[in-house]
Amino acid sequence: VKEPIYIIKIGGNIIDDEALLHDFLEKFAALPAQKILIHGGGKLATRLASQLNIPQQLIEGRRITDAETLKVVTMVYAGLVNKTVVATLQSFQCNAIGFSGADGDLIRSVKRGTEKLDYGFVGDVQKVNTEVLLTLIKSGFTPVIAPITHDGRGVLLNTNADTIAQEIATSLADHFNVNLIYSFEKKGVLLDVDNEDSVIPKLDPVLYEQYRKEGKIFAGMIPKLDNAFSAISAGVKKVIIGKAEELEILVSGKTGTILTNEEHTII
Amino acid sequence: VKEPIYIIKIGGNIIDDEALLHDFLEKFAALPAQKILIHGGGKLATRLASQLNIPQQLIEGRRITDAETLKVVTMVYAGLVNKTVVATLQSFQCNAIGFSGADGDLIRSVKRGTEKLDYGFVGDVQKVNTEVLLTLIKSGFTPVIAPITHDGRGVLLNTNADTIAQEIATSLADHFNVNLIYSFEKKGVLLDVDNEDSVIPKLDPVLYEQYRKEGKIFAGMIPKLDNAFSAISAGVKKVIIGKAEELEILVSGKTGTILTNEEHTII
Repeated sequence: VKEPIYIIKIGGNIIDDEALLHDFLEKFAALPAQKILIHGGGKLATRLASQLNIPQQLIEGRRITDAETLKVVTMVYAGLVNKTVVATLQSFQCNAIGFSGADGDLIRSVKRGTEKLDYGFVGDVQKVNTEVLLTLIKSGFTPVIAPITHDGRGVLLNTNADTIAQEIATSLADHFNVNLIYSFEKKGVLLDVDNEDSVIPKLDPVLYEQYRKEGKIFAGMIPKLDNAFSAISAGVKKVIIGKAEELEILVSGKTGTILTNEEHTII
Repeated sequence: VKEPIYIIKIGGNIIDDEALLHDFLEKFAALPAQKILIHGGGKLATRLASQLNIPQQLIEGRRITDAETLKVVTMVYAGLVNKTVVATLQSFQCNAIGFSGADGDLIRSVKRGTEKLDYGFVGDVQKVNTEVLLTLIKSGFTPVIAPITHDGRGVLLNTNADTIAQEIATSLADHFNVNLIYSFEKKGVLLDVDNEDSVIPKLDPVLYEQYRKEGKIFAGMIPKLDNAFSAISAGVKKVIIGKAEELEILVSGKTGTILTNEEHTII
């Protein structure tokens, strides 16, 4: 039987709120299992860019990353956010080590092609260094990963944190019973975006396809769910989508939306 | 016989010059021995603080670090500089991992007392986690350390990079034949600050004391040399002071100033 591991991705709604972040990290540190944290950058990068008069352009939630913006996201994600998270986890006796994809050659990426649109210094994940992750985990460390990767030729690249979480989860599927948790501002995947009580408790590929056809799952969720089902196809045991504030209940599977490959039960 | 290790500290004169830094890192990557790099922050932090209208105050070269300045140095040192250095080393097949003192609880510090002067979020090193360093080195990684530490209670602290280099060197003295290299803008410790050809090739405590009494060593060098001789008293085999640009010759001991505990030879 493989040991469980929790790969947990947090986004801007937690990172931008000092009290929420502190509270979340206390719960994260207390999880009695192996774990990895992946964080986004929140609004801090946008705010810093604006203070520095570096115009920002977001297309479908993706940041166009010119050379100056790359410096900003490297400073904010791999510097301020990552080290604040690591120091806070250390205060809760969780032996965290912060990583960008360049550190230990953890995540190599390739600069995204410019055929459709020039995203600038944006990278798509090419390879996760599973050996490095296993070495760290076996040495008792908890990796905390910022969404900055590298191309192996000295160039840092801004990379989507949801994708990093999926790739990290997938890379560990042979070694662990992987639980991938995507936290965001809602309690789970909602059937009615305006009703927090309409959480879909369980989704499998068949039900997902059905809801998509019926237009019941809103557009913003689709890339996240596609990522999640890719992870499951690649051997990840379970993906849970829900609110980071409810971490303890979320990992128990009693709240949020659980994605599996198993036969669905319509409730 | 203990294996050699090189602990190399680089400062602003290298970090602020993209071409020099690239060149230095290529030489560093090529050193055929275990090694650790400690970097300062250069002028980038001062520049960023100025762009953000955060007034900076430096007293005897030490930065008064208020809460906003702490964010700036964390972003610049542990973010931009550290990750640029790591990605560049990776491009030279050197498996670097970037660290702040919070990562892996590598360096704990205590906030400096405010009796004489309130330095703000400045920390003095309390403890280096030698076990973490040994684990990393044995796993084949090259640590790259930014001068940001933590107090174990969730607070990051700005810490002098020369002191970090000395403490790291000292902590490894039982395990390695430690060579500590302080690089700066001069070819070595000069007898005449205006004459680059007046490098003192070798200094021991007796000669150092003599030159100090004679006023031959200028004031700015004294904290650096005091640090260096402390390291030697604590078991570091050799301290070399010189130009980072001459790294290969520097490690061979054929240039720069070598500090030892051995009987001196007046040349």
